[in-house]
Amino acid sequence: MLSGEDLDRLRAIVGPERLSTGESELELHSKDESYHPPSRPEVVIWPRSAEEISAILKLANSRGIPVTPWAGGTSLEGNPIPIRGGIVLDMRLMDRLLWVKPQDLQARVEAGLDFVRLNKRLERYGLFFPPDPGAVATIGGMVANDAKGVRAMKYGSTGDHVLELEVVLPTGEIVEVGSRAWRSSSGYDLKRLFIGSEGTLGVITAITLRLQGLPAEFLAAVASFAALEEAAEAVAELVGAGLIPAALEFMDEETVTLINKFNGLALPESPTLFLEFQGSGRAALEDDLQLMREVCADALRLEAGLGREERDRLWEARHLIHDTIRKAFPGIAGIVVDVAVPLSCYPEIVEYAKRALKEHGLKGYLFGHAGLGGLHVEILYHPGEREEQARAEAANAAIVHRALELEGTATGEHGVGLGKRRFMEKEHGLSLELMRKIKALLDPNGIMNPGKIF
Amino acid sequence: MLSGEDLDRLRAIVGPERLSTGESELELHSKDESYHPPSRPEVVIWPRSAEEISAILKLANSRGIPVTPWAGGTSLEGNPIPIRGGIVLDMRLMDRLLWVKPQDLQARVEAGLDFVRLNKRLERYGLFFPPDPGAVATIGGMVANDAKGVRAMKYGSTGDHVLELEVVLPTGEIVEVGSRAWRSSSGYDLKRLFIGSEGTLGVITAITLRLQGLPAEFLAAVASFAALEEAAEAVAELVGAGLIPAALEFMDEETVTLINKFNGLALPESPTLFLEFQGSGRAALEDDLQLMREVCADALRLEAGLGREERDRLWEARHLIHDTIRKAFPGIAGIVVDVAVPLSCYPEIVEYAKRALKEHGLKGYLFGHAGLGGLHVEILYHPGEREEQARAEAANAAIVHRALELEGTATGEHGVGLGKRRFMEKEHGLSLELMRKIKALLDPNGIMNPGKIF
Repeated sequence: MLSGEDLDRLRAIVGPERLSTGESELELHSKDESYHPPSRPEVVIWPRSAEEISAILKLANSRGIPVTPWAGGTSLEGNPIPIRGGIVLDMRLMDRLLWVKPQDLQARVEAGLDFVRLNKRLERYGLFFPPDPGAVATIGGMVANDAKGVRAMKYGSTGDHVLELEVVLPTGEIVEVGSRAWRSSSGYDLKRLFIGSEGTLGVITAITLRLQGLPAEFLAAVASFAALEEAAEAVAELVGAGLIPAALEFMDEETVTLINKFNGLALPESPTLFLEFQGSGRAALEDDLQLMREVCADALRLEAGLGREERDRLWEARHLIHDTIRKAFPGIAGIVVDVAVPLSCYPEIVEYAKRALKEHGLKGYLFGHAGLGGLHVEILYHPGEREEQARAEAANAAIVHRALELEGTATGEHGVGLGKRRFMEKEHGLSLELMRKIKALLDPNGIMNPGKIF
Repeated sequence: MLSGEDLDRLRAIVGPERLSTGESELELHSKDESYHPPSRPEVVIWPRSAEEISAILKLANSRGIPVTPWAGGTSLEGNPIPIRGGIVLDMRLMDRLLWVKPQDLQARVEAGLDFVRLNKRLERYGLFFPPDPGAVATIGGMVANDAKGVRAMKYGSTGDHVLELEVVLPTGEIVEVGSRAWRSSSGYDLKRLFIGSEGTLGVITAITLRLQGLPAEFLAAVASFAALEEAAEAVAELVGAGLIPAALEFMDEETVTLINKFNGLALPESPTLFLEFQGSGRAALEDDLQLMREVCADALRLEAGLGREERDRLWEARHLIHDTIRKAFPGIAGIVVDVAVPLSCYPEIVEYAKRALKEHGLKGYLFGHAGLGGLHVEILYHPGEREEQARAEAANAAIVHRALELEGTATGEHGVGLGKRRFMEKEHGLSLELMRKIKALLDPNGIMNPGKIF
């Protein structure tokens, strides 16, 4: 609990305008986009600098006040829900593009800048920051969760694009980790410790990013298959053939039917793979296309070489699945499964998830970043129907356990947050203890985003 | 100092055959390929399993005995020299390929397997492990130093290919970190903590690697430039144009002259870039070639589309530079500078290094993984000529300091070892303290490869 004196001291740091204890702000910062129950902070603060955050953390650390950084609020596992109350640091005012060095293919941003606006501003340099998790996420939030998204197959995760991080440690020190050199073997790779740490080890305030040249050529394709298994098996074959698409997405029949209806598409309503290739020249993409045709020879239909407009419509539909489901079933709630497995196990996890829905008597939609072995299942339930929600949670747990048995992971990209904590022991065994020790080392009083990951 | 009782207990763990205190073994394990003075261990042990290593580390930890893992012995910064004596763990008997899962593009190896033998055995699957540091390094050694080498530009560093690590912690616990899933957001990325930690945080015993499909097509090119600056400037232009060669190597005029003479090549004796493109189809490579021709329009000569044989000779010559220099100057010693800078600073660091050699009155050869901003300078001196060696060390330090001023790194790929410790404060500032704390957390008695990095 914050005392009146604590609030006064916080006000002295940021001024009265950038601190709120108002009901509506507390409410807005009590929930993300997940099914996890909301929990209000006691105060929301909008810092403008690492120095302000340092002063706030020093106070919080000395007083044992929980601090939860707040980025886009689009998490799907309760990652930013302040379950112990305390302070929420909303990073949205720290949204400057600090510099672009086009010759180095680098940019430095404050943590609160979102990737859509960043990419808009990078266009004139012919550069872009590839990770795209779908929702309008901030770079800081993406780093804290090592966001992946549809283009990770070719370009890598958010973490793979991080060169330097400015981090305010829980005890208030401001450190800079990493290097502007693209490769370094200089001591421990501290930036990777903060990447994906979900705000539990400090507050990320600025990031130097490695950028990519905007590809000149795009080639999109849709492959429709007669059976779920065939689509899932084609994934390992496509990757095994040496293809590196920018995106390789899977959707089950129900998902395709849904997006046809709500997004004005006319895809064959069967298990489907979306592929996109990006390159500097047309010839390279034609090579890829040829290889893809060979691998997908048994597909029900293969439509390749889609025009820009059709491609954009497909990607928009893919991005909007989560929203489309909510539009199709007004008032519905959902749990989004987020597992990843080795490629050879992809058919098995897809079949298993389908069966798990059936066995638990649930409606759900399957899709995912198949090229990296990632599978999402949006499992629906009616809010307030406790028994149905329990079944949805049981199906989620069953799919996660199966993924772990297949030597996969409990979370491919959404992070641990609240929802995946109970699988950590099974996934990590003894090394979970090492994670705990690192948490205790950096955050001895446990003030940073408490109750998450562990 | 090990007591007789310590040696008896070590013998009881591994048996008398896999432990030696013989002069010749101690001597063999006293030096790497660097200029740093040798230092003998007290005993060399050849473990066969993580369990044996665990028992050894428990003993060493309780008795405060230094332990230094030994891989290929090819380090260039004194990384494995046991400067505090104690135990050297030579990993060469742990060299099994544990499994290959071709459908997952994965293999698991023991740490002592070298990458050349691994790649030989992967050939039949049409797969390979891309990192190639030149010397015949073991996978464990490559992970411990996050080795890069000539192909890192397209394929990434060794660490980018690591999915799982089995590590024996300094206190004897055997932990497994990472996941067989290609992407995971499940807790802290512990594997990145051990990657590049140079044996200071534990002993890496087994590694699950992500592999790549063997490229079907290769295209090599040599671009010769009239001036050093032009060659260096072309690097940023090539990368900026969106080209992602497998390799983009730089050599100065002296280096080209040397390899012409000793490797039977007939390259124009001027500043030179070697490029290699790899892809699944010919058409893609022709696109790359076209783009390269445009960027290198001002080159003195551009020879592209080299045949397999000529390409292999070029790469062999590139790999052998270090050996060739020793052949050219029998009995010579050398310090190998290993900096990396942002691409736009590449011309500046190349010019600076050239000037530094001249100002210090030294002979040296410039080359490096230019596409990643990496520059090596092999600075020669006559062993025993103290004053000349001091000048060589001063020139090395000057080039490193300049790289750090240009926001680069003191070591692009050789690691900190002994040689780069004195630059860590300047490069990392406050975050060096965080590295120290992590070292103390994992290795409270400081037994693992003591005296390195810090």
